[in-house]
Amino acid sequence: MTDLTRDDFLGGRLRLYQPANGYRAGVDPVLLAAATPIKSGETLLELGCGVGAASLCAATRVAGIRATGIELQPDYADLARRNAAENDLPFDVITADLRALPADIRNTQFDHVIMNPPYYLRDASTPATDKGRDTALGGDTPLADWITIGAKRIAPRGYLTLIQRIDRLPETVAVVHSLLGSIVIQPIAPRQGRESGLFILSARKNGRAAFKLRPPLVMHDGVAHTADGESYTTVVKSILRDGAELRLF
Amino acid sequence: MTDLTRDDFLGGRLRLYQPANGYRAGVDPVLLAAATPIKSGETLLELGCGVGAASLCAATRVAGIRATGIELQPDYADLARRNAAENDLPFDVITADLRALPADIRNTQFDHVIMNPPYYLRDASTPATDKGRDTALGGDTPLADWITIGAKRIAPRGYLTLIQRIDRLPETVAVVHSLLGSIVIQPIAPRQGRESGLFILSARKNGRAAFKLRPPLVMHDGVAHTADGESYTTVVKSILRDGAELRLF
Repeated sequence: MTDLTRDDFLGGRLRLYQPANGYRAGVDPVLLAAATPIKSGETLLELGCGVGAASLCAATRVAGIRATGIELQPDYADLARRNAAENDLPFDVITADLRALPADIRNTQFDHVIMNPPYYLRDASTPATDKGRDTALGGDTPLADWITIGAKRIAPRGYLTLIQRIDRLPETVAVVHSLLGSIVIQPIAPRQGRESGLFILSARKNGRAAFKLRPPLVMHDGVAHTADGESYTTVVKSILRDGAELRLF
Repeated sequence: MTDLTRDDFLGGRLRLYQPANGYRAGVDPVLLAAATPIKSGETLLELGCGVGAASLCAATRVAGIRATGIELQPDYADLARRNAAENDLPFDVITADLRALPADIRNTQFDHVIMNPPYYLRDASTPATDKGRDTALGGDTPLADWITIGAKRIAPRGYLTLIQRIDRLPETVAVVHSLLGSIVIQPIAPRQGRESGLFILSARKNGRAAFKLRPPLVMHDGVAHTADGESYTTVVKSILRDGAELRLF
């Protein structure tokens, strides 16, 4: 992984090294971090942290959190550590398979668990040409395992927050409903009146609040695709550029 | 059930007798019927048909369907038969508990199964003062049973379509996902930008299409509540008054 880029996140408050050709963090981890209802002093565990985009966005947005990341691929884990150090953010990165977490993680509960699991079923999708990108996009671990493993690591009254492609909402909801309560879904639509392509789900351990379906978060203004950076809606711009919270609860 | 009203549906194309004080059909069964992707010549089974509003709306909207309704409460079943006869619509109503369907129904598969199951969990809600309304709003049969029983009666490639309160979306999706495919959810929001209060779900037996979350159907124009009948959005007006389809697929 010699070809790297260094990219601005949150309007340049966070700068991340990423592989030029592998899996590259886009807006999704930023939205995930914005929707995580974390407060100063709380702990966060990210499963499959990649180069650390979501956790480091959360740590930038909310000072005084303590974040831990699990990453299967050593070169991504190394970049995550480097990104934490260069941005001077508290982020402990562990190279591990989430199905074989080290004992100290298995013995710890976190106020928040977050994840941006692979969007595609490996056997249903064409492999990406880059090995790292392939694992990030369509890993071997079933989505239900990600959620089940994550839910076990949540402290009482703690939160799970994840982002996923809309077509995997039914299986996600089925698993989360069996483990957690107070589910909120935030659909993410490319434009006003269009079907949602992604969703963020947040749920609470021992939560008893009624399920909520939020109005879609609309990414782009207008009806046709122009240049991405230009057309973000005001709400999305404030999340991506100013590190605003995406309040779900 | 001596106190009856006779109410216009679909702009007066359908007129239904209803108990003046019991459970009264509102817009929900009309939306359910509008979203049922039924075509002329197909069969429909409605579980818990009440006075027949949903099935008779479907039969009014699409000529040449054959509808069957199951209703637990004899006085509502009687009204459903009377409504079918007075509107000259093909609707066969059977008085039965959906958990003990007669053999001829258990041996029949239908192109469409529809339902508007009770919105409240009986033990979590205050009983209504009217016995019939109480059963319609918070019946004894668990929601998962409604769906499981309904799914069994769907012909291969046939559809289940239901309307339910948004807080019961997780349990609904969990059950439907385990039985059917090609799930589409149509959220129903009171106003633009507000959280959804109801949802319609449609799914297909042996369906393999990707899950879809449709943009919310917005019931009312404007930001504040005025008079219901006046403030319906154009789309909703066309469904309620003109019998327009609410296309999900």
